[in-house]
Amino acid sequence: MIDRLIERIKETGAPIVVGLDPMLRFIPEGILRDAFGKYGETPAGAAEAVWQFNRAIVDEICDLVPAVKPQIAMYEQFGTAGVEAFARTVGYCHEKGLLVIGDVKRGDIGSTSAAYAAGHLGKVQIGSNLCAGFDEDFATVNPYLGSDGIEPFLKVCREEKKGIFVLVKTSNPSSGEFQDRLTDGRPLYELVAEKVAAWGETCMGETYSRVGAVVGATYPEMGAALRLLMPKTYILVPGYGAQGGKGKDLAAFFNEDGLGAIVNSSRGIIAAWQQEAYAGFGEEKFAKASREAVLVMREDIRQALESR
Amino acid sequence: MIDRLIERIKETGAPIVVGLDPMLRFIPEGILRDAFGKYGETPAGAAEAVWQFNRAIVDEICDLVPAVKPQIAMYEQFGTAGVEAFARTVGYCHEKGLLVIGDVKRGDIGSTSAAYAAGHLGKVQIGSNLCAGFDEDFATVNPYLGSDGIEPFLKVCREEKKGIFVLVKTSNPSSGEFQDRLTDGRPLYELVAEKVAAWGETCMGETYSRVGAVVGATYPEMGAALRLLMPKTYILVPGYGAQGGKGKDLAAFFNEDGLGAIVNSSRGIIAAWQQEAYAGFGEEKFAKASREAVLVMREDIRQALESR
Repeated sequence: MIDRLIERIKETGAPIVVGLDPMLRFIPEGILRDAFGKYGETPAGAAEAVWQFNRAIVDEICDLVPAVKPQIAMYEQFGTAGVEAFARTVGYCHEKGLLVIGDVKRGDIGSTSAAYAAGHLGKVQIGSNLCAGFDEDFATVNPYLGSDGIEPFLKVCREEKKGIFVLVKTSNPSSGEFQDRLTDGRPLYELVAEKVAAWGETCMGETYSRVGAVVGATYPEMGAALRLLMPKTYILVPGYGAQGGKGKDLAAFFNEDGLGAIVNSSRGIIAAWQQEAYAGFGEEKFAKASREAVLVMREDIRQALESR
Repeated sequence: MIDRLIERIKETGAPIVVGLDPMLRFIPEGILRDAFGKYGETPAGAAEAVWQFNRAIVDEICDLVPAVKPQIAMYEQFGTAGVEAFARTVGYCHEKGLLVIGDVKRGDIGSTSAAYAAGHLGKVQIGSNLCAGFDEDFATVNPYLGSDGIEPFLKVCREEKKGIFVLVKTSNPSSGEFQDRLTDGRPLYELVAEKVAAWGETCMGETYSRVGAVVGATYPEMGAALRLLMPKTYILVPGYGAQGGKGKDLAAFFNEDGLGAIVNSSRGIIAAWQQEAYAGFGEEKFAKASREAVLVMREDIRQALESR
């Protein structure tokens, strides 16, 4: 999938992933009214609204970007109905030719990670059948438990040609509390990055490995250092837009070949219609506002890469 | 819930949590046959088998132990049908008076952790309704993202009187890869432990805090040090039994008052019928074998605490 991701990035000229992280407050009144009218103000109603919202946005952006990244927390908050909307969204994105990065941040001891890897990326044996669970193309993974928690994901990545993005340096303000701790004079996130590079060596696509890294746009200097430490690693960069990361900060995350990074924006795209800059679209054309926001972001990144 | 947990530990004399982590290979042939007969060799069939298996075990152990700990990975591997079986299991355990520790190891940036906390422990606003998602009593949480990823869980713990167990030192062989790294001469897990104690101060029950810690039974010396660092923290101890932790290793995790720790066993209880020691029960009485395994474990812990 890493090769397919790179191919689609080249085709679209957009190293962009759209975060499908729908809070109910991002969803236009009309969609909420219809969904609640059908299922009540219930988890099923919320899940229906989320699904209709996602579908409209996916229809508008699927030709512009290579991938989406649904954040499963936003679905789990509505219980099983929400998780069904997650699965439905993954399936629909695939129909529309989009790659799906499941932002699930799973990670556990070996045998448990194997179940997560099977459920999100691979297949599980049920009687004589092999069945896929959520069937994302990539998943985000938490490294705190060490190699034996990662290995089952690597195995599935090799078997199914799928990929993972391991948390290295996250975009949030307190990410440094543990991740920046110096050990032998070097921050923990660099040790994680070295492991990511080593895991990636066992799991190569054509030019980049299937083991990516998450490094927040909010820490561009660290991004530059990590870029050098992990030359064959694709970096998934959250934190652009709403969290404060800017286009000019992004260049550091890319390799000389213009590849090696894919930048996520969630609220900045899916709730664009609520921003002053896109107010002209109005509530009814919310998905068109998202499309326009993708175009603006694509241009911002293009300029950042050109002017370096 | 921490006070209720302690009350039930005292009543049952069993500081034990049963891990409801059903792999299909743990499930007797008869249950699988019925479930596959009804729903086919499909995720729905697997989920039905898991649910019937769990229910039979819960019926046999609910008077003996205070709590169960379903590992959500074992459910997610079967996609949405599996997640429904998870939710159903949580509900049934509550009916039977058991506390439920959702072993979900979630953790993300602030706004996303808020959605996880709402979905697993709290409530979410849907129109004019406040709706619970999975409604566990406790959840396990990954600390790698730092305080702002934990804070939303603390907020829900305060509001709903629920609890979390933060990963400090996990039971797996490679847990030391990052967790044991020395920073200023001290291992990272101790820094996490100090944070756990500090977070707990803001979130106290009567005698222990609502912020617990996960420390593996496989590292009893570290357990002893961590016990002292976090005097008001309940420690959830995985790794007993199948992973190699023994009764005599457990004493270090408890305070002088005989409280302060709760020990998990998963395979050792739910797949007891497959062990030689319990072979006499046969496949049909698999749940009785689980009951007997709980009694043996209770005695093992009692002796470990008495002989210290």
